[in-house]
Amino acid sequence: MADELVHSHDPNHPANLICELCKIFYNNGWVTGTGGGISVKDGDKIYLAPSGVQKERMVPENMFVMDHPSKEYLRRPEVYKPSACTPLFMAAYDIRGAGACIHTHSQNAVMVSLLYDKEFTIANIEQIKALPRVTEPGYLGFFDTLTIPIIENTAHEEDLKDSLEQAILAYPGTTAVLVRRHGIYVWGESVWKAKVYNEAIDYLLELAVKMRQFGIAPDGAIGSEREQRRL
Amino acid sequence: MADELVHSHDPNHPANLICELCKIFYNNGWVTGTGGGISVKDGDKIYLAPSGVQKERMVPENMFVMDHPSKEYLRRPEVYKPSACTPLFMAAYDIRGAGACIHTHSQNAVMVSLLYDKEFTIANIEQIKALPRVTEPGYLGFFDTLTIPIIENTAHEEDLKDSLEQAILAYPGTTAVLVRRHGIYVWGESVWKAKVYNEAIDYLLELAVKMRQFGIAPDGAIGSEREQRRL
Amino acid sequence: MADELVHSHDPNHPANLICELCKIFYNNGWVTGTGGGISVKDGDKIYLAPSGVQKERMVPENMFVMDHPSKEYLRRPEVYKPSACTPLFMAAYDIRGAGACIHTHSQNAVMVSLLYDKEFTIANIEQIKALPRVTEPGYLGFFDTLTIPIIENTAHEEDLKDSLEQAILAYPGTTAVLVRRHGIYVWGESVWKAKVYNEAIDYLLELAVKMRQFGIAPDGAIGSEREQRRL
Amino acid sequence: MADELVHSHDPNHPANLICELCKIFYNNGWVTGTGGGISVKDGDKIYLAPSGVQKERMVPENMFVMDHPSKEYLRRPEVYKPSACTPLFMAAYDIRGAGACIHTHSQNAVMVSLLYDKEFTIANIEQIKALPRVTEPGYLGFFDTLTIPIIENTAHEEDLKDSLEQAILAYPGTTAVLVRRHGIYVWGESVWKAKVYNEAIDYLLELAVKMRQFGIAPDGAIGSEREQRRL
Repeated sequence: MADELVHSHDPNHPANLICELCKIFYNNGWVTGTGGGISVKDGDKIYLAPSGVQKERMVPENMFVMDHPSKEYLRRPEVYKPSACTPLFMAAYDIRGAGACIHTHSQNAVMVSLLYDKEFTIANIEQIKALPRVTEPGYLGFFDTLTIPIIENTAHEEDLKDSLEQAILAYPGTTAVLVRRHGIYVWGESVWKAKVYNEAIDYLLELAVKMRQFGIAPDGAIGSEREQRRL
Repeated sequence: MADELVHSHDPNHPANLICELCKIFYNNGWVTGTGGGISVKDGDKIYLAPSGVQKERMVPENMFVMDHPSKEYLRRPEVYKPSACTPLFMAAYDIRGAGACIHTHSQNAVMVSLLYDKEFTIANIEQIKALPRVTEPGYLGFFDTLTIPIIENTAHEEDLKDSLEQAILAYPGTTAVLVRRHGIYVWGESVWKAKVYNEAIDYLLELAVKMRQFGIAPDGAIGSEREQRRL
Repeated sequence: MADELVHSHDPNHPANLICELCKIFYNNGWVTGTGGGISVKDGDKIYLAPSGVQKERMVPENMFVMDHPSKEYLRRPEVYKPSACTPLFMAAYDIRGAGACIHTHSQNAVMVSLLYDKEFTIANIEQIKALPRVTEPGYLGFFDTLTIPIIENTAHEEDLKDSLEQAILAYPGTTAVLVRRHGIYVWGESVWKAKVYNEAIDYLLELAVKMRQFGIAPDGAIGSEREQRRL
Repeated sequence: MADELVHSHDPNHPANLICELCKIFYNNGWVTGTGGGISVKDGDKIYLAPSGVQKERMVPENMFVMDHPSKEYLRRPEVYKPSACTPLFMAAYDIRGAGACIHTHSQNAVMVSLLYDKEFTIANIEQIKALPRVTEPGYLGFFDTLTIPIIENTAHEEDLKDSLEQAILAYPGTTAVLVRRHGIYVWGESVWKAKVYNEAIDYLLELAVKMRQFGIAPDGAIGSEREQRRL
């Protein structure tokens, strides 16, 4: 069962990190029931949580480990199936060279996918500066617009792969893809970058919903909110 | 006092699990004051929390244990009364062969019961896929509609038994019943299934309330939200 | 300094309980900054938290202890002042024979005080059943209306004493008084009863604000919410 | 590397306090991703968290230490850059003689900055009494109006220094400055005062947003909310 691939006293070992982060994501509402997930790449090895488990109760022994070049499993727990997110995580690894990928059913993501059409845009908010330019080194500026594509959901999660890949290619500057009525995929160069990007994006999604409740356009010019100050 | 029925070093022993889960449910707002509860079946034994106690402070010694076939208590703590939910939990055990049953006063459940008439319906949301078909193996699909019946509340909780049983029989595909202005009953094949179903349903109830705040119908067709995108 | 009055290994000793509960109340937002407080009576001794301290960081040594019959302090930490709530807590002890009293700046309480005039009323919600009749044994029923008086705030907290006492006398069935633009006082026969009442009331205040957001009257008859079901 | 400046078994040592408080601020949503920060002054030494780190995972070894009189770093971790907030924290230390300064990206602060023009004002709420008069000893009263200036955000955080300093000078009674579409800076005589002021201000910002949702003016006279009681 290749347990040596997932057993480590190092808290930063991918198998330990995935378990720790899933507990955090459960407590802040990003993974609920058995939804959502996280994958981490370590050299050529990709660590994946299994399908259908309670994310906050995972232990390292639950983890799948895949050899990236050959796409073959080095470790496959018998009682579980690989996550249906696996082909989607692979898109971020293959096309973007990501180091980790997070998938959540965040309600902020679902709400934004209902309030926006083909893409989510937000501008002139400080938190945008936490997100990378991707096509060149460095981060977005305060006056930049963050754009995240929204793709339509499919009956089976693995069938999202094609449209997710198309969105990644069509939006070379994005580090995330929203899936309508479903949630969001976020990736980054490392597990910590992916976590920070996901936190910053979720903050912006939540803020955008609140702005819309007050009739303020999240991608409006600075000052456009003034007409909303009614009292 | 049959303490051996509730004393175990195994964290998965029903008496320990009930205490652990009630702490989780207290922290996320599902059980408040002394409201709400949980029951777990282990073979022929049914474990029940007592009435009127603070759920997050329960200890295994507080637990009632009933023999399912004879409906007689194998353990009855003298200072407590059995939960008023007991006959309602029994409906899930008797009619559906449930392995565990959860009752919460979730505000999302109460709000949905005020915003809907005879049943709650939601469609085309990924999280629906966490819920079982019940009448056949497998889970609901993304394009399926989740339907949960809503029954009227009664002055005394035990008087809900008849209408709860009728709703269970009238909705053979449901794994939950909403009680207007009161809360929700959710059951499952095991304690973990019941917990996951409850999490998924509460997520959908919360989302439905948010959608209604934006004038979006939770059971509308995909695309019907577009007319709401006003900015 | 009479440290033996506040030093105990018993977690249920009033000095320990007050510290534990203030941490819980800090984490759920009921006490913020240095606002809010709690007092517990044990026989003739009344335990009181000091003024102006961070409630979640209190230790038993911070506690004031008063002899109820003589109203004299048995213990008075030199560096602190007694809480400005003290005369208000005394009203619950003197008039109602309370065993504990909780004061919070809950935002739900403040919002309700802005949305209602002379009293807060809510009816036909299951959680109401957690609250006592007070004038006779037993609890409110589902079809009963919970009524909590709202008094006007004053510049100095101790000046609330007269109107709080009048409200307690004018509403013999209440176990709480709302203070407009300020918060709420809740008391009970014991510290645990006070905590449970406070949880149940705060749940109902929060729910009432949500109902008003949807234009549903919290004290309306069952069925009156139907006209609000617009989708 | 001057590790003796940051290594201490005293939980109240500034390097330990900063780490502990950042965990608290992460959990309540004030610092997200790598945004926000905190600085503490101890005698002539100013402790500063580095730029671009996850605030909830900081350890004392990450800390910068500056000598206040000479503005020279006594300790500079090689792998990090000083926080971009440093010049802004210095404004509070230099102009106001602050003992600690907190910067958050609180969504309540951002929302208020979108709903108000040049300054945020709120009146007649008890929690206002937790805030200092600043220009004279003592605290604001219930009938006082709390006023916090709002400055415009800039592309680079360090460019905020001039307008922040102008706001501090123009509002001698404020202990905080809001930055439009960005967040808030709060300072106090000590780290605990700064924390308590920040908690009280964030409570008031959150409450003001809720009041606006109901069409109630946060700085309106007592009784002005009555016209809003529509049910």
